[in-house]
Amino acid sequence: MESESPTPDLHDPRDRRLPHMAPPCGLVLFGITGDLARKKLLPAIYDLTNRGLLSPAFALTGFARRDWDREDFEEFVRSSIENYSRTDFNERTWQQLASGLRFVSGSFDDPDAYKRLAETVAELDQSRGTGGNHAFYLSIPPRWFPVVCQNLADNGLNQREGNAWRRVIIEKPFGQDLASARELSDVVGKAFDESDVFRIDHYLGKETVQNILAIRFANTMFEPLWKANYVDHVQITMAEEIGIGTRAGYYDGIGAARDVIQNHLLQLLALTAMEEPVRFTPESLRAEKEKILSALRLPEDLASTTAHGQYAAGWQGGAEVKGFLDEDGIPAESHTETYAALKLFVDTRRWAGVPFYLRTGKRLGKRVTEIAVVFKRAAHVPFENSDVAESGQNVLVIRVQPDEGMTIKFGAKVPGTEMQVRDVTMDFNYGHAFTEDSPEAYERLILDALVGSAPLFPHQREVELSWQILDPVLRYWAERSAPEPYKPGSWGPDSAHDMLARDGRTWRIP
Amino acid sequence: MESESPTPDLHDPRDRRLPHMAPPCGLVLFGITGDLARKKLLPAIYDLTNRGLLSPAFALTGFARRDWDREDFEEFVRSSIENYSRTDFNERTWQQLASGLRFVSGSFDDPDAYKRLAETVAELDQSRGTGGNHAFYLSIPPRWFPVVCQNLADNGLNQREGNAWRRVIIEKPFGQDLASARELSDVVGKAFDESDVFRIDHYLGKETVQNILAIRFANTMFEPLWKANYVDHVQITMAEEIGIGTRAGYYDGIGAARDVIQNHLLQLLALTAMEEPVRFTPESLRAEKEKILSALRLPEDLASTTAHGQYAAGWQGGAEVKGFLDEDGIPAESHTETYAALKLFVDTRRWAGVPFYLRTGKRLGKRVTEIAVVFKRAAHVPFENSDVAESGQNVLVIRVQPDEGMTIKFGAKVPGTEMQVRDVTMDFNYGHAFTEDSPEAYERLILDALVGSAPLFPHQREVELSWQILDPVLRYWAERSAPEPYKPGSWGPDSAHDMLARDGRTWRIP
Repeated sequence: MESESPTPDLHDPRDRRLPHMAPPCGLVLFGITGDLARKKLLPAIYDLTNRGLLSPAFALTGFARRDWDREDFEEFVRSSIENYSRTDFNERTWQQLASGLRFVSGSFDDPDAYKRLAETVAELDQSRGTGGNHAFYLSIPPRWFPVVCQNLADNGLNQREGNAWRRVIIEKPFGQDLASARELSDVVGKAFDESDVFRIDHYLGKETVQNILAIRFANTMFEPLWKANYVDHVQITMAEEIGIGTRAGYYDGIGAARDVIQNHLLQLLALTAMEEPVRFTPESLRAEKEKILSALRLPEDLASTTAHGQYAAGWQGGAEVKGFLDEDGIPAESHTETYAALKLFVDTRRWAGVPFYLRTGKRLGKRVTEIAVVFKRAAHVPFENSDVAESGQNVLVIRVQPDEGMTIKFGAKVPGTEMQVRDVTMDFNYGHAFTEDSPEAYERLILDALVGSAPLFPHQREVELSWQILDPVLRYWAERSAPEPYKPGSWGPDSAHDMLARDGRTWRIP
Repeated sequence: MESESPTPDLHDPRDRRLPHMAPPCGLVLFGITGDLARKKLLPAIYDLTNRGLLSPAFALTGFARRDWDREDFEEFVRSSIENYSRTDFNERTWQQLASGLRFVSGSFDDPDAYKRLAETVAELDQSRGTGGNHAFYLSIPPRWFPVVCQNLADNGLNQREGNAWRRVIIEKPFGQDLASARELSDVVGKAFDESDVFRIDHYLGKETVQNILAIRFANTMFEPLWKANYVDHVQITMAEEIGIGTRAGYYDGIGAARDVIQNHLLQLLALTAMEEPVRFTPESLRAEKEKILSALRLPEDLASTTAHGQYAAGWQGGAEVKGFLDEDGIPAESHTETYAALKLFVDTRRWAGVPFYLRTGKRLGKRVTEIAVVFKRAAHVPFENSDVAESGQNVLVIRVQPDEGMTIKFGAKVPGTEMQVRDVTMDFNYGHAFTEDSPEAYERLILDALVGSAPLFPHQREVELSWQILDPVLRYWAERSAPEPYKPGSWGPDSAHDMLARDGRTWRIP
């Protein structure tokens, strides 16, 4: 082992304590005026520039219908950065970024606009040295994907020359079911190779999600426990306190399962359950995730192993809140679920017989995303039954957000008693442990896409396997009655609790 | 599982959240004026009374050469309690305790004094209802054991009647080697059955020592890791900052190995390494501890696998301190070691090939007692070598004192890097986790002896097995040159560091 200095050497490209650095390239952002671009993507691009991870040649082109000139666009970008950046505003960084800003005005279906875009891209290669490397970020509704991809192709914007690259970055939803996901992929695939398609699941960019891999595979002491021999079940939760807000247009007809389970929760499940990859490469990681996704099995009786609900009107956090059906833009007869839970088995030797319970919902008791590995009770305890009555099962919780870290719950002796055991916890807090700031998920993912490093992006095959699991559940719910109402601030509908109670278990209150 | 209220029911004897309660009985304390009695035993007896764990009939008799009457003794006891008790001084508790105080004046070899003691005991049975149950606590130098035991026997004080009991409680050292330990045991054995002999190793009364058993056997997640497959080695440390103080008379000729390793550290090793007992009973526990002690093996080459040292003069914590050989009462040519370390193997399937390193010393860097289970490096890590360069081996540390609890050291991802892993810790603090006060070790042990519950007392067989391990080391050291000097405030002599360096390991800096 070479001895290394404790601080990264900024000039040594082999120093892997630094994230990789993007080569000279351009990024074209469709949907620049949207909330995501304004609050997440532009600030992330600025933060990457500030961290010195983008080439000085980097250029950002906005594409939108607005009748803006370059100065208007510059002002828009600056205000977004000033409001939402993680790192401090730095005039030199801003000047570097600003000098590479371009704006193309036009609608997504205006062929002339794409001509102007092609000219802009060519101009950047010449004036700024972006070297023919360009990524197109489609932060737009999926119905526009075919149109944009077709127009990019028509203008040769998807054509790489020599060693240069052209990539497309797309945001979920990747379809609404297996069929539409395949259609979407076909459309994108006409213009771009699968290896040039980067599907953003921003959860996978989160530090703690990547930490799942570090915890499991860089340590000795967790992996031996990570199997059916010791694990009773796993609970994966993504809970929100908020309702749908102003997103009725997007949310209605989509619902909690499509919005969260298909992508985030099934990806978290795959990272939790997968075997150790041979290497930390996109191919190795995907191979292991795909094995898990293809080993997933729904129980036969979906009535007792799934649950879906809609938040009712009520009180939450001292405020009166609307029910889902009363929200602006939601039809009174909508069957869209705002809570979804399901039970899955992973049919591998490691996990045979261990249920994975997934749940997500809006207007729940707390904003939290976590993976809880709940261990079996000790096979034999030499103490009296009454002595261990106050101790439950051991639990290892990986907290993804907001209080990122890890908690272990185990039994310890109560002082002063003979041998009374009570549950205690020990805690690791990601924010306290590291002086390094956690970058935003989008910083990591945009950088990875520009570098061409794909371990954190789900492959089309993973998307399809996930829909394959979800489709029967969605069909089953569609054929049945409406989702069950639940109180805001609660932990979901009764059917969700019954679902676990039937198995002799309970949902964690995180 | 019955549902139980969260607070103990004081009136329900089946509520095992309460420690057991002593029956009516008397305790005769030899060596009442010694430091141990004054600072630990009398306060512990008061604290037990205050906690309601001694019968109102409980009587305490002091036996000493002082020319005291009952009032003098009462004053002495009260002042000890006021100065050293853990719980608040309570006049009612004190009155209860004081009414059962007796004093017998005499030397340990004065037959008349034992006659008076026999009369006192008989009087207590009559006046206070101690019911013939009496324990004799020999807090005196071992050379007096034969004399006291003989005199107790001569006066029938060791004779039980009916269901009543007579017990003897003795303090370490239990001999100075195997031969003297057997002699001592024979002497005591003439007057008392082995089952009525309670050998105090106050370390075993500590909450965190008992917590080793709770952690290992009331949980699921630690025991699978607790074996040669995953454990690289174990380090058991008891370090003190202080020198020998005024204890030259006791310490010279005894030394660190006899004083600490033979009892405390080998008992900690046994509790750490033993298999799960069938039940939490003295017999089951002893059977498992004995199996480990009898499976211990010293390496053949004691020169490279043991180390002993003497603290030199120097500076510690900003003060100049004497070397061991300059301490009052220590002969200038003394070979008594103040630091001792050794390496042991446990020849069982579970621990085959795993070294257990024990060390203890005075004038070391920090006062700490801990058991560190150091795990092997992960067999394969999918990340680059440079990525895990800042992460070491996983370690699980059980902190026995002073900061009682548990720490786990493991690797987590460094934020912002690709997949750099760095060591972090998670912590469980016994004092923060429980609102219950931790009783002093002596409270637990005195209570256990009065109740007749022996899981925490080492059996004579354990004592002998421990000496069997230590004798060859002591002989080897005696035949060799003097102990190696080490600097006060350091972590022991160079030979101790070399000993681990040869194995490619290092001692932890706790």
